[in-house]
Amino acid sequence: MDKNAIPKATLGRLPKYLQYLKNLSEDSPDTISAAALARGLSLGEVQVRKDLASVSGGGRPKVGYIKSELIQDIEDRLGCNSLTPAVLVGAGKLGRALLDYNGFEEYGVRIVAAFDCNDKLVRKEGGDSKDILPVSEIYDFCRDNSIRLGIITVGEGSAQSVCDMLVKSGIDAIWNFAPYRLVVPEGVLLKQENLALSLAYLNNQLHQ
Amino acid sequence: MDKNAIPKATLGRLPKYLQYLKNLSEDSPDTISAAALARGLSLGEVQVRKDLASVSGGGRPKVGYIKSELIQDIEDRLGCNSLTPAVLVGAGKLGRALLDYNGFEEYGVRIVAAFDCNDKLVRKEGGDSKDILPVSEIYDFCRDNSIRLGIITVGEGSAQSVCDMLVKSGIDAIWNFAPYRLVVPEGVLLKQENLALSLAYLNNQLHQ
Repeated sequence: MDKNAIPKATLGRLPKYLQYLKNLSEDSPDTISAAALARGLSLGEVQVRKDLASVSGGGRPKVGYIKSELIQDIEDRLGCNSLTPAVLVGAGKLGRALLDYNGFEEYGVRIVAAFDCNDKLVRKEGGDSKDILPVSEIYDFCRDNSIRLGIITVGEGSAQSVCDMLVKSGIDAIWNFAPYRLVVPEGVLLKQENLALSLAYLNNQLHQ
Repeated sequence: MDKNAIPKATLGRLPKYLQYLKNLSEDSPDTISAAALARGLSLGEVQVRKDLASVSGGGRPKVGYIKSELIQDIEDRLGCNSLTPAVLVGAGKLGRALLDYNGFEEYGVRIVAAFDCNDKLVRKEGGDSKDILPVSEIYDFCRDNSIRLGIITVGEGSAQSVCDMLVKSGIDAIWNFAPYRLVVPEGVLLKQENLALSLAYLNNQLHQ
């Protein structure tokens, strides 16, 4: 099973399957078919069948999947059993919104700390809140905690220097919200988020 | 020229073309070719040629586009000359981050006001800041200002009721950030934003 092969839309449905499977009563059968799962979630059977086949090789004709195995396979694929720690740089409004959002863990990622160059935003051991540390600590923090994933929510003017700092600190996947086309070394994954574009697309459809 | 036909990636490049064209000196020729634009922006010529053809019918072989016409066509397509006013409901950290972001206007959308049920967040005539109004004023505001586009940045628990309120207020395109599958009447456009999914996808590639 090629880990690369999973489409984004499938990935988006995995948490739903997982939640449904985990909420089935203990008395329910040990196996479940794609058809039953499709009915339970009001999804198309063909889609569910394809999704499950892409994450688990355990499906049997006329029997379906062994529930516990399927749960395990989905969790593995989502990385639930081994949360990837991530850091975020730029603790402005967007940065803090992402920092406080708990939905990432469902998809296998935990933002463990944020960094900002504004000392007023720095906070440590904030109880329920995650730490916001001075940018000068990025390198040591990432090295000490084997961080591989970095999120950039600074302005466009400092995005590249933050990116360079993250790469130097061992980060090899970057999620960039700054409206700036970053240059990264070969081998570093880059996902550019352009929120304005989503809105523009909707606006464009509205005026069709 | 079918307005629907424009792909999202093309839409994303239009502001770059526009900026480049507007920054050309007054002494530059009145026409510009796709090849010249591609060189200037370090983009592939085939891509630029396709992009321009999808927004403007004015390209001539061996001549290219008349600059002023091309600027006009791109602006029309982006809706720059007629900003679509939008409202946002939910003035938490994410909501305020979007409210303060100025990059949307480049794509033809202006968030004109936000609404929140928390009276402490309400602010009117805040100088440079945009108004945050009580949710009770949504209906009148949207009707009075012919608002068609609404952005939902509330929690999942109140997303559907906010959505219903927006639809009742005449909104026919919704950009939803709440992790909740909204039900909208036929004819209402819905774009579901799932930020966690982008991060999950990156994480998935990281562990390939």
